[in-house]
Amino acid sequence: MFKKIFSYGLLAFVPISVIGHLLGWNSTLVFVTSAIAILPLAGWLSTATEEISVVLGPSWGGLLNATFGNATELIIAIVALNAGFTGVVKASITGSIIGNLLLVMGLSMFLGGLRYKEQEFQPTMARLNASVMNLAVIAILLPTAANFTTAGISEEILQNLSISVAIVLIVVYCLTLLFSMKTHAYLYDVGKSEADDAEEKEGHPQEINLKLWISVLLGVTLLVALESELLVGTLEEATAQLGLTELFTGVILLPIIGNAAEHTTAITVAMKNKMELSVSVAVGSSMQIALFVAPLLVIIGWFMGQPMDLNFNPFELVAVAVAVLIANSISSDGRSNWLEGSLLVATYAILGFAFYFQPV
Amino acid sequence: MFKKIFSYGLLAFVPISVIGHLLGWNSTLVFVTSAIAILPLAGWLSTATEEISVVLGPSWGGLLNATFGNATELIIAIVALNAGFTGVVKASITGSIIGNLLLVMGLSMFLGGLRYKEQEFQPTMARLNASVMNLAVIAILLPTAANFTTAGISEEILQNLSISVAIVLIVVYCLTLLFSMKTHAYLYDVGKSEADDAEEKEGHPQEINLKLWISVLLGVTLLVALESELLVGTLEEATAQLGLTELFTGVILLPIIGNAAEHTTAITVAMKNKMELSVSVAVGSSMQIALFVAPLLVIIGWFMGQPMDLNFNPFELVAVAVAVLIANSISSDGRSNWLEGSLLVATYAILGFAFYFQPV
Amino acid sequence: MFKKIFSYGLLAFVPISVIGHLLGWNSTLVFVTSAIAILPLAGWLSTATEEISVVLGPSWGGLLNATFGNATELIIAIVALNAGFTGVVKASITGSIIGNLLLVMGLSMFLGGLRYKEQEFQPTMARLNASVMNLAVIAILLPTAANFTTAGISEEILQNLSISVAIVLIVVYCLTLLFSMKTHAYLYDVGKSEADDAEEKEGHPQEINLKLWISVLLGVTLLVALESELLVGTLEEATAQLGLTELFTGVILLPIIGNAAEHTTAITVAMKNKMELSVSVAVGSSMQIALFVAPLLVIIGWFMGQPMDLNFNPFELVAVAVAVLIANSISSDGRSNWLEGSLLVATYAILGFAFYFQPV
Repeated sequence: MFKKIFSYGLLAFVPISVIGHLLGWNSTLVFVTSAIAILPLAGWLSTATEEISVVLGPSWGGLLNATFGNATELIIAIVALNAGFTGVVKASITGSIIGNLLLVMGLSMFLGGLRYKEQEFQPTMARLNASVMNLAVIAILLPTAANFTTAGISEEILQNLSISVAIVLIVVYCLTLLFSMKTHAYLYDVGKSEADDAEEKEGHPQEINLKLWISVLLGVTLLVALESELLVGTLEEATAQLGLTELFTGVILLPIIGNAAEHTTAITVAMKNKMELSVSVAVGSSMQIALFVAPLLVIIGWFMGQPMDLNFNPFELVAVAVAVLIANSISSDGRSNWLEGSLLVATYAILGFAFYFQPV
Repeated sequence: MFKKIFSYGLLAFVPISVIGHLLGWNSTLVFVTSAIAILPLAGWLSTATEEISVVLGPSWGGLLNATFGNATELIIAIVALNAGFTGVVKASITGSIIGNLLLVMGLSMFLGGLRYKEQEFQPTMARLNASVMNLAVIAILLPTAANFTTAGISEEILQNLSISVAIVLIVVYCLTLLFSMKTHAYLYDVGKSEADDAEEKEGHPQEINLKLWISVLLGVTLLVALESELLVGTLEEATAQLGLTELFTGVILLPIIGNAAEHTTAITVAMKNKMELSVSVAVGSSMQIALFVAPLLVIIGWFMGQPMDLNFNPFELVAVAVAVLIANSISSDGRSNWLEGSLLVATYAILGFAFYFQPV
Repeated sequence: MFKKIFSYGLLAFVPISVIGHLLGWNSTLVFVTSAIAILPLAGWLSTATEEISVVLGPSWGGLLNATFGNATELIIAIVALNAGFTGVVKASITGSIIGNLLLVMGLSMFLGGLRYKEQEFQPTMARLNASVMNLAVIAILLPTAANFTTAGISEEILQNLSISVAIVLIVVYCLTLLFSMKTHAYLYDVGKSEADDAEEKEGHPQEINLKLWISVLLGVTLLVALESELLVGTLEEATAQLGLTELFTGVILLPIIGNAAEHTTAITVAMKNKMELSVSVAVGSSMQIALFVAPLLVIIGWFMGQPMDLNFNPFELVAVAVAVLIANSISSDGRSNWLEGSLLVATYAILGFAFYFQPV
């Protein structure tokens, strides 16, 4: 019911935001309507990706999923990068990692924990994912750490270091795909069969219209790009009108819009006691951002002539380190309850305050 | 025997310190005698709290214990705050966390480990506590991190951020009480029954005189306040005479005085191979300070017109992070031996040196 | 085969480097030949140490092993310290820790993992070692942290703090020897019997000629000293000619030379599925450097009038913290696979880039 309103009803905001833009509405209004319009589109994008993946089979499907899984965020980021908002794009990378690990996982554990006294998931995968996350986060934040601890690092050195790091990360990303799809695919079977169950119970048809879904994928991708243009075009004015800093917008606002699909999925399955899947959506999405989206943006930015290094605000470094640390500490034992969920949400709230209070 | 001397004999220092004050003794002498006088009073305060808790039953008793568990430290801190020693109070917060996690837990594991080759405790609780500690410590240190990594944060912003953090922490504290006393009380049964055993074996009478213990509680609380006044009043002169910095006094000296009761309990039960209880006293006390005492002091300071933010010395941030990290790494497997205990004590010693060598 | 070339063939570089030095060859050439000459000497040094240890029995043999296990690094470091290269010596300490935890352990897990789908080792020991490493690393880096977070720490205070830390570390080192050889020796039996197996399979003779091996030990030690003189004497010019900074030489180059023996052993046994032994070589070597070699150098430097404090480059602090964090996170579950190995190697590569790009 709620889901239907979300998937179909909110689509009305696609034309509304476009009309608003054409009629020259107030920036904040266009910003808000295009933000709302992206929510159902992100949902459709991920549905289409998953449907096509099923037809393509585990290997190619997995690859498609791995590439298009964070398509909404990637599109918003490329549009913003093109418009020269490198600061906002960088902030939205850290914000997505923090949001997935703390807010998505936290709400899932909290709401799931209200229904079930204790929920379990596979600690082996949780630990391996934690190690991959640790590497990815360390790599992404290394240029910041180098810049913060050493005086006199030139912008050129930071750019070179960022590109080197980006290449290593994309290699590691390919290795994790090889690991999870080829050499150690059996480790991931538990989660996958649960995911299939989850979908089947929602009654998706066995005969899938591949062509239809490919058209949906392409059409929705275009719409997301379009709406991203409206969002990014009004970003500066709208946030100024709302009294928000660029940092807060990038770290808190944009990721909530871009990750709406993951939020919904992770929380829904957690409330059905499929914690395994819920955790893997939240952690998997963070991993994809750190290992694939972020390095890709560094390389795209370099080609686009909008060089984006990985030199973040030092407080972003603190925030990501904190998020990874507490997410590791909570997920490493393969169990969760409502208190653990609320700890994650509380950490998110505290970091949110800190970003809100950061001076421009 | 030793315990009797401690509980009764040292009470003699209560009148001694008062007389010393009235006769205008040297500050260092009054400081030392009032410090010694607080030791048995802290013991009686915690005994009275526990006795009344038993009568009140698990729920209200637990609440009383949770509120008055660190009463001595709270009283000293409020008196010091009132006298304007915000620096010392802040230092004593980090010092209490470090002291409980490293010195109390370390000595317990070391002395217990000399008697028993390997000691065990529940790793589930250890991990949940570790996660709560991580959140609390992160929250308390966040304003410091924000200030250290960002130029130009005003005192007002730090104060606002500190109050926001304090409110989130008190909410989390209430949630942990709800968790441990209501929704997941069964998880804590093991520790509790051991605690009861411990007390029973020491032969405390089944018929408890509630009125007597309430009078003791009130009387002792007054005496601790009184002695705290003497302690704080002579603090500045005494430490100057001893050649100690304010930071060293706050981080090392005061917490040893304020936590004497926890030290005694944790070590005594560890030597009786009740490691579960010993660890929960040490970690529980740190948690209470981080989740309840510290935020309460921020709020009290704000009302008292002695605004105390959570902007610590950056090295205190390092020290607390180090203490939590190593305590987590040692307690997470639910086992301990003398070497692990000595590692904790060695870390404490090294941090002690570092604080001792810090310039004013 | 490969091993024979390594052990005997490369010895030819001992006379080559000496002749090169006498004939006044280019510095880079002497540097490279003496570096290659050290590789087989380090191998013979560790073989001789082990052979003598077997005769001396577990207690004295273990002590000999613990003292001479990193003899090559110690000799190079003392020669370099004597020549006034305190910066390079400090860098080589952090470099050895990073190299052992990331490169040696990473290559072992990666190459071992290519042959065996999953490899196991004892998590109990891994965790205890991790705790000891945490303490050691914290202690070594504390003076740096104190200096970085506090303005106005004098060189004298840093020196005093470093000596205090060094003494605590050597005490802890003695305690870990006491623990592993006396009070809890049984915990280490698994690894030891595997180690014995490994040696026996390589067919070493049962009747050992003690005198012969002692002569080898003394002779090789002299040669290593000699070659270290050549290496250190040409260090400055050679690295300048190669365009490398002092930091990069110390952190990346020297440790690869000094740790060649550990590299070979750890990787060889990992490929024979003796992961237990492989991990204990890598972690054990890091522990020895942090707990014994580093503090010893501080104390030797003080006596030699070449005072060496423990105030590292802040980025070295970041690098070591990162190495310990990710090594802990990967080794704590007692299992490894090729992906985990490649994560460690990738972290090493990224840190290597960062050190390479550090300005002088």
